[in-house]
Amino acid sequence: MKRIGMLTSGGDCQALNAAMRGVVKSIINSGQEVEIYGFLNGYKGLIYGDFKMLTGSDFSGILTVGGTILGSSRTPFKTIKDPDENGLDKVEAMKQNYYKLKLDVLVILGGNGTHKTANLLRQEGLNVITLPKTIDNDLYGTDMTFGFQSAVDIATNAIDCIHTTAASHGRIFIVEIMGHKVGYLTLNAGMAGGADIILLPEIPYDIKKVVDAIKKREERGSKFTIIAVAEGAISKEDAKLSKKEYQKKLEKSTYPSVSYEVADQIHKMTGQEVRVTVPGHTQRGGSPCPYDRVFASRLGAEAGKLILEDDYGFMVGYRNREIVKVPLEDVAGKLKMLDPDATIIQEAKMLGISFGD
Amino acid sequence: MKRIGMLTSGGDCQALNAAMRGVVKSIINSGQEVEIYGFLNGYKGLIYGDFKMLTGSDFSGILTVGGTILGSSRTPFKTIKDPDENGLDKVEAMKQNYYKLKLDVLVILGGNGTHKTANLLRQEGLNVITLPKTIDNDLYGTDMTFGFQSAVDIATNAIDCIHTTAASHGRIFIVEIMGHKVGYLTLNAGMAGGADIILLPEIPYDIKKVVDAIKKREERGSKFTIIAVAEGAISKEDAKLSKKEYQKKLEKSTYPSVSYEVADQIHKMTGQEVRVTVPGHTQRGGSPCPYDRVFASRLGAEAGKLILEDDYGFMVGYRNREIVKVPLEDVAGKLKMLDPDATIIQEAKMLGISFGD
Amino acid sequence: MKRIGMLTSGGDCQALNAAMRGVVKSIINSGQEVEIYGFLNGYKGLIYGDFKMLTGSDFSGILTVGGTILGSSRTPFKTIKDPDENGLDKVEAMKQNYYKLKLDVLVILGGNGTHKTANLLRQEGLNVITLPKTIDNDLYGTDMTFGFQSAVDIATNAIDCIHTTAASHGRIFIVEIMGHKVGYLTLNAGMAGGADIILLPEIPYDIKKVVDAIKKREERGSKFTIIAVAEGAISKEDAKLSKKEYQKKLEKSTYPSVSYEVADQIHKMTGQEVRVTVPGHTQRGGSPCPYDRVFASRLGAEAGKLILEDDYGFMVGYRNREIVKVPLEDVAGKLKMLDPDATIIQEAKMLGISFGD
Amino acid sequence: MKRIGMLTSGGDCQALNAAMRGVVKSIINSGQEVEIYGFLNGYKGLIYGDFKMLTGSDFSGILTVGGTILGSSRTPFKTIKDPDENGLDKVEAMKQNYYKLKLDVLVILGGNGTHKTANLLRQEGLNVITLPKTIDNDLYGTDMTFGFQSAVDIATNAIDCIHTTAASHGRIFIVEIMGHKVGYLTLNAGMAGGADIILLPEIPYDIKKVVDAIKKREERGSKFTIIAVAEGAISKEDAKLSKKEYQKKLEKSTYPSVSYEVADQIHKMTGQEVRVTVPGHTQRGGSPCPYDRVFASRLGAEAGKLILEDDYGFMVGYRNREIVKVPLEDVAGKLKMLDPDATIIQEAKMLGISFGD
Repeated sequence: MKRIGMLTSGGDCQALNAAMRGVVKSIINSGQEVEIYGFLNGYKGLIYGDFKMLTGSDFSGILTVGGTILGSSRTPFKTIKDPDENGLDKVEAMKQNYYKLKLDVLVILGGNGTHKTANLLRQEGLNVITLPKTIDNDLYGTDMTFGFQSAVDIATNAIDCIHTTAASHGRIFIVEIMGHKVGYLTLNAGMAGGADIILLPEIPYDIKKVVDAIKKREERGSKFTIIAVAEGAISKEDAKLSKKEYQKKLEKSTYPSVSYEVADQIHKMTGQEVRVTVPGHTQRGGSPCPYDRVFASRLGAEAGKLILEDDYGFMVGYRNREIVKVPLEDVAGKLKMLDPDATIIQEAKMLGISFGD
Repeated sequence: MKRIGMLTSGGDCQALNAAMRGVVKSIINSGQEVEIYGFLNGYKGLIYGDFKMLTGSDFSGILTVGGTILGSSRTPFKTIKDPDENGLDKVEAMKQNYYKLKLDVLVILGGNGTHKTANLLRQEGLNVITLPKTIDNDLYGTDMTFGFQSAVDIATNAIDCIHTTAASHGRIFIVEIMGHKVGYLTLNAGMAGGADIILLPEIPYDIKKVVDAIKKREERGSKFTIIAVAEGAISKEDAKLSKKEYQKKLEKSTYPSVSYEVADQIHKMTGQEVRVTVPGHTQRGGSPCPYDRVFASRLGAEAGKLILEDDYGFMVGYRNREIVKVPLEDVAGKLKMLDPDATIIQEAKMLGISFGD
Repeated sequence: MKRIGMLTSGGDCQALNAAMRGVVKSIINSGQEVEIYGFLNGYKGLIYGDFKMLTGSDFSGILTVGGTILGSSRTPFKTIKDPDENGLDKVEAMKQNYYKLKLDVLVILGGNGTHKTANLLRQEGLNVITLPKTIDNDLYGTDMTFGFQSAVDIATNAIDCIHTTAASHGRIFIVEIMGHKVGYLTLNAGMAGGADIILLPEIPYDIKKVVDAIKKREERGSKFTIIAVAEGAISKEDAKLSKKEYQKKLEKSTYPSVSYEVADQIHKMTGQEVRVTVPGHTQRGGSPCPYDRVFASRLGAEAGKLILEDDYGFMVGYRNREIVKVPLEDVAGKLKMLDPDATIIQEAKMLGISFGD
Repeated sequence: MKRIGMLTSGGDCQALNAAMRGVVKSIINSGQEVEIYGFLNGYKGLIYGDFKMLTGSDFSGILTVGGTILGSSRTPFKTIKDPDENGLDKVEAMKQNYYKLKLDVLVILGGNGTHKTANLLRQEGLNVITLPKTIDNDLYGTDMTFGFQSAVDIATNAIDCIHTTAASHGRIFIVEIMGHKVGYLTLNAGMAGGADIILLPEIPYDIKKVVDAIKKREERGSKFTIIAVAEGAISKEDAKLSKKEYQKKLEKSTYPSVSYEVADQIHKMTGQEVRVTVPGHTQRGGSPCPYDRVFASRLGAEAGKLILEDDYGFMVGYRNREIVKVPLEDVAGKLKMLDPDATIIQEAKMLGISFGD
């Protein structure tokens, strides 16, 4: 008998359900008896002992369903070691619930913040297996995360829709794409949608170069320009600020986001109308794309295998086309950034895409 | 030989190309010889004589393509009778170009503003046939406009994506849907997407009733609420203001749009996080849905038939499941509003949807 | 307290769940207490007393889900009055179950066959309300059925995919679209997908005219042709046969369906390769399109209203843009055919589409 | 000045246009002058000197367009060395056209057959660069081909649609997926669509084991089963036949394809209805998915780079997440098969999927 705790933490994304289904199916199909404790709303459920018992049939039919059947929340990871408002030691509470339920393992699905806490629990002696979930694909130790390709599909679809209206009206359009710290999603959706300019957190932009790129297009007869802007895109000047100074600047800004600032600057420098579209949270939602369904199912199945082998302390990741186990200490606290000199960036430049650098 | 001028005016939408293809195919297939003058970027092209000659093959393969091959623009309809910055009489210029090219008819595709100018040109003695284009479905004299169903599909898809993330996080989400004056699009997308609350321009809302509806859902165990808000949604207090006063209020507002104001009010009254998503111009773009392709093709074919019969001065519309010709003077200057007591509103209420009224 | 029996019968289609949700939501939201008996797998469940009790929450979240939560089956409608293999009188059994459970009404969702039996039950004294479900849109007494527009979307999407490959290879492609007796689905998908030739049950084709249309396209420089063929398309010769003779011919035929026969004839007469694609049952499946979700929800809500008013014996239909109640005796045993001279057929011909007639 | 010949050969697929656009954009953006000769309909155009001159603008706007702007054909690769019906030496003719037009390089996009001929031309002294196109992902020397992921999306979508109808009717459904020799597409679409049984060319099936898997599902309460069958699936008995014997058997078979044989056998052994759906050529068509757009653009850009460096004789492939140049002699005449013991197969089995082995 295996007693498995399971939770999904952080911003939700596509294929969380597919991944959990993979874990449970692989264990049940092995013939191993199992009890599944689904903690609700991320670490909160583990801290406060809020869970529901699940059986195999709860995981039937959820391969294609977005979101997470367990609910999720962004527990303040930075304060995880601090007591809660009632003085409860949160880490201790999680450990107690783990031991009280006699769990063999915690299966944790999440992104960067989630992995820090998962590693903390491992250090505290709990058995932990994690699965790499994020639309940002910024998790260290794995080439790919599930949710990413589904988000690329949705963001690309938004750019596709904007394309026809931009072309018809001869306008400049900005599509703001999710990603505060890393630009994989914006880069891929931008390339897939045929964006002319792509602004990423990793490559600070010079607004003059952005305007130059627009003008060059006009000279060649292109009457419209599509700019894919990551939420975390940053100008060269702002990139020189300290983190604190930049934070302050953002707080004072009257622009809802950097896209609106870019739009305003382009408008002032060219006299042209610039429209901003923000697909926002739609990028996390809906049915996972086939790639993510297969990928998350595979990761889940391998997590199940590790559990059957009592082999704990790992994130199940993907490297060089192999599914691998990555020690949690190697993942926690790191970020996988996009290298500004990566081959794909060079290729995008060959294709004529400007990064404003 | 028929000499046909053609232009698309106002915000672009899906199936403009399908409609133009319908006009041209039906004339060519009749055996009638034809010369097609495609004026670029709406009335501007007609004013300044900016056009390109088109043949049947230019309309081949565009049935499924969004946008308009002629380009469009929002010529300031209100100042159409005023001279331009060089003193040019715009109406006179359009007439001169019409006569200089010896046109038999102008085929004009557009929405409300477009139809006012189209009717003006008719009054000035030009032969005009129009086609009803708008994602808002607010054109008087026709039960349906092309673009509408395609926009419903895109807006619904956005709500679908938001649904999974709202459910997973137990959050309140607002999806802002296009429509400054009329609520057909928001109503239909809201009902199709399973929105719990729908705010429309035609039904001023009371924020307390909106919050009540959220609380009632919570009491029944629903942890999330989805609110579809039309761009032109208005509160009961604001609805009492004069047009001028309201305009002033909007200008002073620090909220990017009414959705953000609603979000802020709900947040303050409930303490809950409220997220806003704005699919924006994506709602006008992309490939037309099958319904719009068939509908626009049919309207186009009937427009072609009228041209072959030299029967001018009409919008080709759709009423009681029949394609009909509607005198332009009956269309121009009117708006088709959604009746707050319409059957569909009552049905939506039966389904448990709150309109905040 | 209302005691409602509910069943879905015949081939499944999109928006069955949306319609049932509409019925239940409108009754529950009225404050009326309700007990819902969901009979499983169509009339079978009613005959053999196979049902499950349902509550409001069973209908939550199913607006967008294809298929039917009750299951369906094609009970042999023609033998409904005959005893089953154990000698059971099926009509009597349905009545007994109805009375045993003290039902106030049976809500029946289905197409043509389903409505015959529904009317029979009404004649036997049961309270019945029906909802018009079929991808074929061939139900008498209503302008529209739910499932139809969703099926048009899927069939059109198949033609869209075939379009690029047909154009690239300069080939003739047949896409076989569902519809044994009526051609609405094929006609609409064919027009939306830009099919060049459309073969319908209502318009018998002459294969020579089909080949002529292909050759005319070639002469104009079109290297490919797309033909949308309804399952029930029939040649002029075969249309002269008696029903029996034709049935015999079909049974002897070595072609899997009429599309393959058409393909073979074209191949023999032109020497060109002809490929056949059969999207088949995909046309009934997947999430309902937004149009069907709204439409089915509205019909369901109105059905709920009739139940609250104890007003029975009707199909809730749609005529001239109004939701109406249609006496069951006016619906049962009739088929809504597509008129070969309908305006839409004439418009399709104006657009250059050949029907092979 | 670079003089580039370009052709697309074999069955078309998604992202051919995206790849060609990538080649041309990267060369033009480098500042290099270029003349582009687009040979029509595959090698035929090169053999018979049938081409059109293209400029950069011909490649604008085609990133998202399926098919190929050059047309394609399946020139009989096996007889490429034989003279044509007029005695023309085809290889010699291709060489002469190459030299007559003073080409610097031939850019050839295609799959297995295409690469054999491409390598032949290289051996004959022509400069050749190839790009790996096929929905089958069976090209040797590259981990991925463009078209594959788009086809997975379409095939998965078909299974998704079938899922709701299968579940509603409690039926067995077979979805036949493209792939005569290799099973990547069927495997991935099957896993993504939640197929219960997957039959692949690489893993001969035992029909009894297939029926066992169906029965085991029934015992667990599952009333429906979905089987994804590759076109080239083969039974254990047939796998023992020689290639010739098997070919003979297929020719004699009255089943349109192996799926129908499997359906018939299951029907006979279980008494249950089995339905077959064949999405067919839809799998090659429509707009490329975002993954393929990015991937094909990247490969195209790198091909452009090789041309700028006069580095010829390679296929631009993808290995271990790097874009690499693969000598044509290493690609030609080989097939990348799916290993029956591959990790992904084992994972699929862990998930409970039966391969009938």
